Amino acid sequence: MKRTVICLLSVLVAVPALAAEHPVALVIHGGAGTMTRDELSAEREAAIRDDLNAALDAGYAVLRNGGNALDAVTAAVVFLEDSPRFNAGRGAVFNADGINELDAAIMDGATQRAGAVAAVHKVKNPVRLARAVMEQSKHVMLIGDGAEAFGRTADVEFVEPEYFRTEYRWKQLQDAKAKEAAQSSAPAPYSIGTVGAVALDVNGHIAAATSTGGMTNKRWGRVGDVPVIGAGTWADAQCGVSATGWGEYFIRLAVAHDICARRAYRRDSLERAADEVVMKRVPALGGDGGIIALDAEGNMALTFNTSGMYRAWVRPDGSRGTAIFR
Amino acid sequence: MKRTVICLLSVLVAVPALAAEHPVALVIHGGAGTMTRDELSAEREAAIRDDLNAALDAGYAVLRNGGNALDAVTAAVVFLEDSPRFNAGRGAVFNADGINELDAAIMDGATQRAGAVAAVHKVKNPVRLARAVMEQSKHVMLIGDGAEAFGRTADVEFVEPEYFRTEYRWKQLQDAKAKEAAQSSAPAPYSIGTVGAVALDVNGHIAAATSTGGMTNKRWGRVGDVPVIGAGTWADAQCGVSATGWGEYFIRLAVAHDICARRAYRRDSLERAADEVVMKRVPALGGDGGIIALDAEGNMALTFNTSGMYRAWVRPDGSRGTAIFR
Repeated sequence: MKRTVICLLSVLVAVPALAAEHPVALVIHGGAGTMTRDELSAEREAAIRDDLNAALDAGYAVLRNGGNALDAVTAAVVFLEDSPRFNAGRGAVFNADGINELDAAIMDGATQRAGAVAAVHKVKNPVRLARAVMEQSKHVMLIGDGAEAFGRTADVEFVEPEYFRTEYRWKQLQDAKAKEAAQSSAPAPYSIGTVGAVALDVNGHIAAATSTGGMTNKRWGRVGDVPVIGAGTWADAQCGVSATGWGEYFIRLAVAHDICARRAYRRDSLERAADEVVMKRVPALGGDGGIIALDAEGNMALTFNTSGMYRAWVRPDGSRGTAIFR
Repeated sequence: MKRTVICLLSVLVAVPALAAEHPVALVIHGGAGTMTRDELSAEREAAIRDDLNAALDAGYAVLRNGGNALDAVTAAVVFLEDSPRFNAGRGAVFNADGINELDAAIMDGATQRAGAVAAVHKVKNPVRLARAVMEQSKHVMLIGDGAEAFGRTADVEFVEPEYFRTEYRWKQLQDAKAKEAAQSSAPAPYSIGTVGAVALDVNGHIAAATSTGGMTNKRWGRVGDVPVIGAGTWADAQCGVSATGWGEYFIRLAVAHDICARRAYRRDSLERAADEVVMKRVPALGGDGGIIALDAEGNMALTFNTSGMYRAWVRPDGSRGTAIFR
């Protein structure tokens, strides 16, 4: 009897302490880039905010129910891949051959396992394929037809290539090709709409995931930062990052890993580390874009050097929001 | 006249000072792994040491003549790719389809430009293609047929796929397949012989390059750490790394960037940073392999947690050596 009381007391004491030590949090993005309030109609803005909120709900429901960070980022990114309004999964941009060529990555901070895929064309949710690579293969990165052949052995849904097509992105490709043919001003270096998520779960574990169609009119099997672990996607025991922007610069600076390394080794705050990399180092090389990040203490960074980044968050205190411009 | 004397004096004073500030150095590897003195015949060991010495000569000649680090690592890696004794270029391992599938990367520390290619089959020197990606495209990473299509637009030599074939590697594939069919003990997780180089030039600039055929019997478009900038290959203004080993673990730990980040942000010595990552963090996850690294002060690390790593070096004082085992 005495023992039971002591046990009950321990539970009563322990639960709030645990909750305080391991607050859950979620941050997501739907891409950074040069966007103006004029270009963004009220309808489109509302639709994008609705999608961000729904993706946040999908991921946060997992965390609130005690689920793990991996499931939370998967749920959020799958939602954004399924929406036609982002450059990932359905609604991704077209490459120069008029094909949707998709990249994705996921990383589990607790174990530092990772999965990444590049240049897949028929997988409905590339982030699920990346996760299957992490969980069901001995590998981290699989590309092209081989990655899809692996996907056939895993529990991953395939679709016809037409599934990904939207008129909005098809028109972007035609515009890019027309500009290229006219040798007019350079087209936008990348296409807004990469999606990503970073989550902190009740066990204090972090996961990060990112998914993209890459650059409109891309050719030569170009791969950006998204499936490059350490560049566009990173998670470890203390810190997770998902990036969006001009991928080449993010690879050259190992942006995602560098932010976490500055936090770990220089004891920079997450915000300071993100500022230094995204606001100084990326522009110094000529690149642009943004990141979302979380650390194990529940600190959050949503940092971009462009005019906007589609983003949404739930803080450890439960407060939430969505934003597009600064 | 007075002015000329002053100028001459400046030159006389400046040249030794510059030389002291910017000693040249070069370190190369031909792969790490589980190797025993018994398995390595005296003939094969001599041939490998000859190749390492010749590759070192090729790279060091560039540096000694005032050439840049990029040219030095290119020369050293091209030599090793051309040798049939390493798992890169000619002599690379075969994938499960009996094809040589090659990955390479190069990075220029002074500008943090980088180039990487994965899954190419017909390019004689994948490191040259990686360099062309860096110098002649707007991209960092190109893969598969697309990378080769780009290569056709660049000054890169193509060969028939048979060029890469060696009986030694073909037999390794047959052995791996026989073991797989018999479901006997797991085959070696990777194949020894990835090659790489890191150089420090007279201007104090660092470059790194790595090239590989990956794992014997690999499938599903598996890509290891070599073309993942920050994992198998990294260079910045202060530090450069080329890795070899079980690539999946090197990606999960962003090994190359992590070593340089520890040096930069924690002020660890290069050796200490390499020890921490290669001797502790990689084995803690279950991986193995090694790295070579240089910093801008001419410090050198050749660190491996396997029984051997084919390696050679020229130190800033001009002393040189080759080694295989500890």
